[in-house]
Amino acid sequence: METVSERPDPRIRSAGPGDAEEIARLLHDFNTEYEEPTPGPKFIAERVAELLGGGETKVLLAGDPPAGLAVLRFRRSLWSPGLECYLAELYVAPDRRGQGLGRALMDAVIDLARAEGADYIDLNTAVEDRAARSLYESLGFDNRGGHPDDPGAANLYYELEL
Amino acid sequence: METVSERPDPRIRSAGPGDAEEIARLLHDFNTEYEEPTPGPKFIAERVAELLGGGETKVLLAGDPPAGLAVLRFRRSLWSPGLECYLAELYVAPDRRGQGLGRALMDAVIDLARAEGADYIDLNTAVEDRAARSLYESLGFDNRGGHPDDPGAANLYYELEL
Repeated sequence: METVSERPDPRIRSAGPGDAEEIARLLHDFNTEYEEPTPGPKFIAERVAELLGGGETKVLLAGDPPAGLAVLRFRRSLWSPGLECYLAELYVAPDRRGQGLGRALMDAVIDLARAEGADYIDLNTAVEDRAARSLYESLGFDNRGGHPDDPGAANLYYELEL
Repeated sequence: METVSERPDPRIRSAGPGDAEEIARLLHDFNTEYEEPTPGPKFIAERVAELLGGGETKVLLAGDPPAGLAVLRFRRSLWSPGLECYLAELYVAPDRRGQGLGRALMDAVIDLARAEGADYIDLNTAVEDRAARSLYESLGFDNRGGHPDDPGAANLYYELEL
């Protein structure tokens, strides 16, 4: 697609297991900023290290030291030989916003998902998060379930706490 | 939760690998009915058998012979020791609608997700699918991201084809 940058942004790199503490710090800051519960950096770092080792989770980091990240979760598709890719988290630290790190991360997310053999990327976002929606829509993300001309067809994301 | 039936509905059972062909038939019918692409029952049956064997995919069947199903995908949470549960598919054949099979499946979905150790169930649905939304909402599913008093906070589900 034309929306993907042709040259990788040098500020973006794939995380390895040694990045678990930096990733955990960013994820903890993310949830703290948005007043979501967080189990704390230590728990998150241990879990991230496990998930990165398992192969179905990939993390992209932006900046040095890292000031933003994207967390991708892959699984085998029910409908094709390929994979499904869920963009679980996308975050840029407040003092680094407005420098294109979010867009650079998203370009790298799309490149990585393609390289891994994903058929699509899905994600969810809130109606009022206009900056995120604008970024996703500019890259071709669609919330109308393949019905671009039907404004009533937007997909809602539902969740039930157990 | 009070919304879950106390007695399991005898019409619902967990699928095993031997059910792959029945599951594939229903999934193929599902996509055909909604004019979505389908790779055909043979491909789907092979894939379902593999996924059921892998342990992260569970299928519930309704009726005998099966006339409805729910497909659940589990993965380890980033934020807790538990699992995340994605309700990937929910379907009842047209000639068996209105008999409570969808609700019975959803009750069993919630019971199974809890039993497997999931922290939550998520899913997506279209704005115009009022029957599905009504069912999900009656069971406590929320599309407002934890902001029940803010009508602007509904979560949209985005997808990018690759």
